[in-house]
Amino acid sequence: LAAETFLAEIREQPEALRRLAARPEVGEAAAALRRRGIDAVRLVGHGSSDAAASYGVYAFGLLPRWTAFRDSISLTTYYDAGIDVSRSAVVAISQSGRTPDVVEYVARTRARGALTVAVTNEPESELAAAAELLIPLAAGDERAVAASKTLLNTFAALALLAGAVAERPEVVRAVRRVAEQLEEALPGLEDAVEPLAPTFAFVGRMYVVGRGVEFGTAREIALKLTETCRVAAEPWTSTDLSHGPIAAVDSMFPVWAIASRDECLPALMAAAELARKAGATLVASGSAAGEVAGAEFRLPVPEAPLPILSPLLSIVPGQLFAATVARAKGLDPDRPVGLTKVTLAQ
Amino acid sequence: LAAETFLAEIREQPEALRRLAARPEVGEAAAALRRRGIDAVRLVGHGSSDAAASYGVYAFGLLPRWTAFRDSISLTTYYDAGIDVSRSAVVAISQSGRTPDVVEYVARTRARGALTVAVTNEPESELAAAAELLIPLAAGDERAVAASKTLLNTFAALALLAGAVAERPEVVRAVRRVAEQLEEALPGLEDAVEPLAPTFAFVGRMYVVGRGVEFGTAREIALKLTETCRVAAEPWTSTDLSHGPIAAVDSMFPVWAIASRDECLPALMAAAELARKAGATLVASGSAAGEVAGAEFRLPVPEAPLPILSPLLSIVPGQLFAATVARAKGLDPDRPVGLTKVTLAQ
Repeated sequence: LAAETFLAEIREQPEALRRLAARPEVGEAAAALRRRGIDAVRLVGHGSSDAAASYGVYAFGLLPRWTAFRDSISLTTYYDAGIDVSRSAVVAISQSGRTPDVVEYVARTRARGALTVAVTNEPESELAAAAELLIPLAAGDERAVAASKTLLNTFAALALLAGAVAERPEVVRAVRRVAEQLEEALPGLEDAVEPLAPTFAFVGRMYVVGRGVEFGTAREIALKLTETCRVAAEPWTSTDLSHGPIAAVDSMFPVWAIASRDECLPALMAAAELARKAGATLVASGSAAGEVAGAEFRLPVPEAPLPILSPLLSIVPGQLFAATVARAKGLDPDRPVGLTKVTLAQ
Repeated sequence: LAAETFLAEIREQPEALRRLAARPEVGEAAAALRRRGIDAVRLVGHGSSDAAASYGVYAFGLLPRWTAFRDSISLTTYYDAGIDVSRSAVVAISQSGRTPDVVEYVARTRARGALTVAVTNEPESELAAAAELLIPLAAGDERAVAASKTLLNTFAALALLAGAVAERPEVVRAVRRVAEQLEEALPGLEDAVEPLAPTFAFVGRMYVVGRGVEFGTAREIALKLTETCRVAAEPWTSTDLSHGPIAAVDSMFPVWAIASRDECLPALMAAAELARKAGATLVASGSAAGEVAGAEFRLPVPEAPLPILSPLLSIVPGQLFAATVARAKGLDPDRPVGLTKVTLAQ
C-alpha cells in the first residue's frame, strides 16, 4: 500500500520525541557550548535538514539570544575561503550522516577551531565521526524516503539544545508535553486532511507561507509536497510574498498559510489576505488556523506550551496532507521517483 | 509597448554601473567598517534585495574573508530578541528605501550598537535617514516595476564594498571592465533570447539552479520570472536540487542552470545532468554555458575579469528572457499584475 511506511512513521513521532527528550547528549553538548566563548552558531544541512536549520536560527535567537545563521557550505567546501570560525559553533544536520559536503564542511571548520556538533540519526556515520560532539536523533529506523520522524526530532533537538544553552529546563518538559498533544491530535488530523485530497490532486504549484518561528515549517512542508506530490511548492515569508511572488498567484495557485499564535501572526494574516484577494484557494494550519479569514480549508493544531515549539505540531498537518494528496495522485511517498533515502550528491 | 521601460532600463545598466563605480561613498563606508572591529556582516532585504544579500555573503566571504549572512529580520522587528549586534555591521538593502521592516530593523540594530549601512537608490529615503552610512545606488530613476538596473547596481555595490574592505582596488577597475563587456554583449544577448519565447510561453513552473557566487543570481532570475511571467520559478543550489526537488522534474518542467567558470562548476554540471536525465528541458547560461551537456538553449556571457563579478553578467540573460517571455505571454513587466514599485507590506 502506498504511503504505508510514511504514515506509520508519522504516527511514531510522539514516541520518537519522548525518546529524544530522554537522551543525555543534548545537555552535554549545551555544556560544551557554554564553556567555550561562542559568538555565532553556524547551521548547515540540505533538504529537510536545511529547513530545520531555518528553525534553529529562531531557537538560538529566542532562547539563549545567540546569533545563529544558515552558513554557506560552498564558501568552505568549494572556495576554501578561510573565514575565521574559531569562535563559532557548527551545528551540522544530516539524517543519514552521510551528506558529503556537510561532512567535509565539518572536517574543515573543526580543523579551523570551530566547536562542531553533529545532529544525525546515525551515530556511527561519517558525520558523527567528523564532529567533536554528537546529538543522536533517536528517531529509530526510518524507511520511507520522505522523512518524517527524523525531521521532527531534528527540530526538537535544536529546540532542546538552544533551551539547554539558555539553561531553561522547562523546554524539555514542554517537548514531552508536545508529544502528548501530538498523540491526542493525530487521529483528528488524519481525518481532517482526507477531504482535501480531491481538490489538490491536480494542483501543480503552490506557495507555503510562514514567518519567524514557522518559516522553517513552511520550507519543510513545501519540500515535502514537492518530493512526494510533485507539486512545485515554494516557501515564502509573509513579507517576501508581497515582494514579487504574489504576481503569480491566481485561482489556480493555492496558498498554504501557517498561522501560529505569536508576534508574527498579524504579518501572516496580512499575507493570507493578499493571497485571498488574488483569488488563491487558502489552506490555513497552525494554532491560529481558525483566525485566517476566508480560508477554504483549515487544519488547526493545539497550541504548544512554549511558542518556540509550535513547529513540532504545525509540521504534522503538512506531512499528512503530503501522504494523502500523494495517494490521490497515485504516487508513493515511501518511494518517490528519482529519490533515494541517502543523497550522496556533491 | 509592453516591457518598453524594462528593456530600456536593462540597456542602461552599463552606464549605471559606471556611475556607481565613480561614487566615493563605497570607500567611505569601507573605511568605517575597517575602523570598527566587525565580527559579522548582517545583510537584510526583501525580494530582489534579498537575492542581492545572498550574493553579498560571497562578496564578503571571498574578498575580505568576513563572515556575512542574511539575518532574520523578524527576530529583531517582531520578536525583539535582543541579540548582541554590537560587533556587527548591518547592510540593509532596499531600492526604494521604504521597506518598513527593513527600516525598523536598521533603527533597532543601530540603537543596539551595530554599524548600519543603507544601500538604496533613494538617498532621501527613510532607510537612508535611519542608517549611519549610505551607499547610493546611483542607478538613476527606475520606472518599470520589475527592477533591473537598481538590482544590478546592488550586486555591484556589495562587490565594491567588500573589495574596498579587503583593500583590493582592482575590484573597481574590474567593475568598469564588466560595464564594457556588458555593453558589447547586450545586442547579441537580446537576439539570443528571442528564439526561447515560443517554447516558454506556456511554461508554468521552472527551477533555476546556481551554486556559490551564482546562487544569488539564481534567486534573482527565479524571482524575475515569477513576477513578470507568472511562472512558479524556484531557485535551488545544485546540491539541494538532488535533496528532494528533483523528484518533481519531468519533461514539462524546464531547468535553468547558471554555469560560471569557478570552483562550483562541477557541482553545477552534476545537477544539470541530473535534471537532464529526469527529462527536463535545460537552459544553460553563464560564462561556461557551452560546457553544460545536453542543454537545449544556451545563453553564454563573457567571463568577468574577477570570478566574484560573474553575476553582474550572468543576471542579464535572465532579465532579457523575462522581458521576452512576458511579451510572448501578453504580460507587461513594466506593470505586473498585483505589484507596485514600492512594496510597503509589513
